[in-house]
Amino acid sequence: MEEAAQGAINLNNSGLSILEISHRSADFTAIIQEAEQLVRELLGVSDDYAVLFLSGGASSQFFMVPMNLLGEGDMAAYLDTGSWSSKAIKEAKLFGKVEVLASSKPDNYNYIPKEFAIPTNAKYLHLTSNNTIYGTQYQWWPETNIPLISDMSSDIFSRPIDVQKFGLIYAGAQKNMGPAGVTLVIVRKDLIGKSGRTLPSMLDYQTHIEGESLYNTPPVFPIYVSMLTLRWIKKMGGLAAVKKINEDKAKLLYDEIDANPLFKGTAAIDDRSRMNVTFVMPEQDLEKSFLKACEEAGCVELKGHRSVGGFRASIYNAMPLEGIQTLVNVMRDYAEKHD
Amino acid sequence: MEEAAQGAINLNNSGLSILEISHRSADFTAIIQEAEQLVRELLGVSDDYAVLFLSGGASSQFFMVPMNLLGEGDMAAYLDTGSWSSKAIKEAKLFGKVEVLASSKPDNYNYIPKEFAIPTNAKYLHLTSNNTIYGTQYQWWPETNIPLISDMSSDIFSRPIDVQKFGLIYAGAQKNMGPAGVTLVIVRKDLIGKSGRTLPSMLDYQTHIEGESLYNTPPVFPIYVSMLTLRWIKKMGGLAAVKKINEDKAKLLYDEIDANPLFKGTAAIDDRSRMNVTFVMPEQDLEKSFLKACEEAGCVELKGHRSVGGFRASIYNAMPLEGIQTLVNVMRDYAEKHD
Repeated sequence: MEEAAQGAINLNNSGLSILEISHRSADFTAIIQEAEQLVRELLGVSDDYAVLFLSGGASSQFFMVPMNLLGEGDMAAYLDTGSWSSKAIKEAKLFGKVEVLASSKPDNYNYIPKEFAIPTNAKYLHLTSNNTIYGTQYQWWPETNIPLISDMSSDIFSRPIDVQKFGLIYAGAQKNMGPAGVTLVIVRKDLIGKSGRTLPSMLDYQTHIEGESLYNTPPVFPIYVSMLTLRWIKKMGGLAAVKKINEDKAKLLYDEIDANPLFKGTAAIDDRSRMNVTFVMPEQDLEKSFLKACEEAGCVELKGHRSVGGFRASIYNAMPLEGIQTLVNVMRDYAEKHD
Repeated sequence: MEEAAQGAINLNNSGLSILEISHRSADFTAIIQEAEQLVRELLGVSDDYAVLFLSGGASSQFFMVPMNLLGEGDMAAYLDTGSWSSKAIKEAKLFGKVEVLASSKPDNYNYIPKEFAIPTNAKYLHLTSNNTIYGTQYQWWPETNIPLISDMSSDIFSRPIDVQKFGLIYAGAQKNMGPAGVTLVIVRKDLIGKSGRTLPSMLDYQTHIEGESLYNTPPVFPIYVSMLTLRWIKKMGGLAAVKKINEDKAKLLYDEIDANPLFKGTAAIDDRSRMNVTFVMPEQDLEKSFLKACEEAGCVELKGHRSVGGFRASIYNAMPLEGIQTLVNVMRDYAEKHD
């Protein structure tokens, strides 16, 4: 934050703010190139893939993916693991046939479906790697010869990814990468330009590949802060190190949930998210006073989404282990006092 | 910049950065509501219009406007005054019939066409209010009963606008409103939802009207800085005061261009832009050494766009009169030394 603020006043001692430099300036070119380079290095992205910094959020990728990859009459396969998947499915239906291979909706999305057949004529298989509301996360990837596409908005840069398994990965920046306003798209170049559609320039991946994300004025400041965040991840030791920390954090909290009789996790154990830990209190009338105890200890924004209830601890990269320890201590103290 | 940087560290003494607060938080709700209120107050926008803060830049409005307002078989009228108009025309052709009523292209876009007939069956008439590359600007609006639509990316908030004359106004923020990454759309609500098209949610103005610009995660920081800029404009005395300053700045520079035999304006006098002042040197071989003299005096980024050549002084709201005076002094000194 301090470094981002410094850039907002005086970037690289240029006397100019990141808020006023041109997106065609040498300073910004260096920033966006370093951001791309860091994405490639941290995730191991080969030259077969383009790395794009777009605007419009992951919500825009919900339709840009089918618009760019599905021709008239083509079919795409989707896995439905929550509200983000559902939105992606809804938008895809505007551009082709959609087969939902599996859905955990009947169980309030509390697990990741594992049994499904992937039709070989599907143009791609789309999944949401982490489900913020329901606290589930893929800990494996489907084996398939068709391109795998994933919305990784809420867990990108939280762990290493074998990018080669994917045709396209997209992610809104605002969880682990930077501030709201920029969307990362990693796309295998050979998938582009085959839909037979004439697209508005801004909605055509090819435009942004040719323009190197500078076809139009990009979101300069969000890209700058993302670059700073990626530098920090590299300094931490890269994604293997980040994954270790995230697993330690998640384990600390899930262990307490499993050990403490006042709490109960909502997601299937194998599919538990390392980013969003969802849990309830079987004695529901205690939830209000427990939430108050959390807030008094400085643990805020813990209220679960209305469709799950209870609590949700969002423990993205920026959350330190100490933050989790504080919450675990509150849970223990609360249980002791309750006895 | 200082205030924006302060917000990046500690917003309203909350201990949280604008870069980490949720777009659903009370702090951000207050920011986006104040930004909307300031837009309404400064431009005099009535409740018949929605005020939206979107992402994707003006380039996305090039296609969102026809996608939302043109039905199959409908026709839209466009005025072609430069490269931004041309891009808007190109995208509109994907969604309906386009009639270009007039174009100044044969004269390298050095004027704003004034003689044209507006077909009454057109759904709207689109124009680009200020043309950054060619240094021209509308100083009047066409009289018509069909909705007028304007890309005001490069001169919004530089002067008062009679919004009632328009069906829709859009503007990328990065000239007079804030940093790159947010786009202002002011749209008369009764125009929406009549195209008969089923649009992706993110591309449907109705989605953003219903979601109050919060359907998806909006570009939080660019909206915050825009709000700060709008506060500053209000403090300056509003748009009448800003217009006066901009006219004084432009007059100072154009007067020197007209008086100094070494320089020549490129745009028709009646259509001269108060935002981008374009000029050349009839003795073209002097241009390089003049540019050097400018840079030595601290006047930078003066090189004209390759399609016009010569020089372009972009004197948006952020440029003080003193900056123009410095440039005028360089022009005078240079002419004296040259004699």
